[in-house]
Amino acid sequence: MSQPATERLSTEKVRAGEATLVDDDLIVEEPLSIELDGVLVASTMRTPGDDFDLAVGFCLTDGLITAGELPRLRGCLGSPSIAAASNVVAIDTGRPQLVNGPVATARALISSSCGLCGSDAIHELADRIGPLPDHEPWDRTLLVSLADRVEGHQPLHDATGSVHVAVAFDRAGNVVVAREDIGRHNAVDKVIGRLLLDARLPANDLVLFVSSRASFEMVQKAWAGGFSALVAVSGPSALAVQSARRAGMTLAGFARAGRANFYSPEGA
Amino acid sequence: MSQPATERLSTEKVRAGEATLVDDDLIVEEPLSIELDGVLVASTMRTPGDDFDLAVGFCLTDGLITAGELPRLRGCLGSPSIAAASNVVAIDTGRPQLVNGPVATARALISSSCGLCGSDAIHELADRIGPLPDHEPWDRTLLVSLADRVEGHQPLHDATGSVHVAVAFDRAGNVVVAREDIGRHNAVDKVIGRLLLDARLPANDLVLFVSSRASFEMVQKAWAGGFSALVAVSGPSALAVQSARRAGMTLAGFARAGRANFYSPEGA
Repeated sequence: MSQPATERLSTEKVRAGEATLVDDDLIVEEPLSIELDGVLVASTMRTPGDDFDLAVGFCLTDGLITAGELPRLRGCLGSPSIAAASNVVAIDTGRPQLVNGPVATARALISSSCGLCGSDAIHELADRIGPLPDHEPWDRTLLVSLADRVEGHQPLHDATGSVHVAVAFDRAGNVVVAREDIGRHNAVDKVIGRLLLDARLPANDLVLFVSSRASFEMVQKAWAGGFSALVAVSGPSALAVQSARRAGMTLAGFARAGRANFYSPEGA
Repeated sequence: MSQPATERLSTEKVRAGEATLVDDDLIVEEPLSIELDGVLVASTMRTPGDDFDLAVGFCLTDGLITAGELPRLRGCLGSPSIAAASNVVAIDTGRPQLVNGPVATARALISSSCGLCGSDAIHELADRIGPLPDHEPWDRTLLVSLADRVEGHQPLHDATGSVHVAVAFDRAGNVVVAREDIGRHNAVDKVIGRLLLDARLPANDLVLFVSSRASFEMVQKAWAGGFSALVAVSGPSALAVQSARRAGMTLAGFARAGRANFYSPEGA
């Protein structure tokens, strides 16, 4: 049985100095442990729902599994006798165990982004994933319009006012997959995991839209999923721009209200 | 020599369908490794600056050191022969080594928030930190005004349009410490680390303001720092509210434009 994604709690709303006591829907945040071939590879605070997508997407974007693998999934969800087990997803790839106990755990928990410096981190990604295949230029009018096209795909945001969304769009501006989560990285992993399970990776002909900033980690995840474009509502970091340029990915930020800034490719 | 916090990159701004090529200041994001008594305890993507504050604050809020300890600090910053070393801060407490190699690393990398479920995580914090001492009720008019009082303390946000801020305010509404970072958790750790180094912890008579949502992790950090109130620009998670109620911490969210919602204490 899946856990709810919102919870009703008493709240005192203060407006113009006047307080009113109401019940309000808040976004649920619960830990999820992700195990890969018997090894704990991540613990993350997430909004329950689409936990398989999240776990598979995390393993892909962190380089622990590849898009060529369609892993067998074993989830502990739905075990009513062990409530706590609903916060664990275990993935079996059927491979011989890759790695050993605590060392593997430590390795997996150190994000692959954590080299000695940012350019090391970019080199590591370029070595692991390689540049994206050449892609047709994206229609900028379409990319600028994505923030408006997300409307209607954010039920948890509509209910709580406070949750991130990630959406994969096709070149016609249609929503392919949309996922919400209290963690922006989780929302992206859920989208990428669903695309992987639907055998739609690499997503070379899709654009990934995120309601957050474009940090290095967002570019890393989009790159691992094969997206040829990433569009963020808020701004990118310098390292995110350098990564997108290295990947050959179109990157736009501050994409809202009919405007956007384009950072990659450089000087297009 | 400290690394810069912003970097100028070429950007194409699209407004009303017209593109203009300009140079734009972007926020810098670089990895930082934090070592405690010779053990790697964290790697985080952060904006360079106040790295000692960040490292000390992280160790405190993660329960690796206590407010009673004023650790000796040894930083690799300023070593021109090893550029990469500017992304490492090593802390020596002078204690015998607490923990051993990879197991310790793995333990430290699993955030203390990652129990089997959210209520476990709250129990763990309550056991480790204990409830906050009773505090005078906070003036709600003051708490509602904090978002306006942050103006002038966000130079990196003013330059880049995209960075988080955390601010410790006193009961008169004065800024005690303000710190910016691309990571909202880093901004908070920098504030708490600075307060620790200034021997101002526990911060029972201060309120922590954050420009982000109030996730469980934000409450955890504020609780570990001893703040009696946490005010967030965006919304809290249900778990954050439950944690603040357990801690005895005043918690407000959606605090902007002269409004706020108060979630803790319950039904105040």
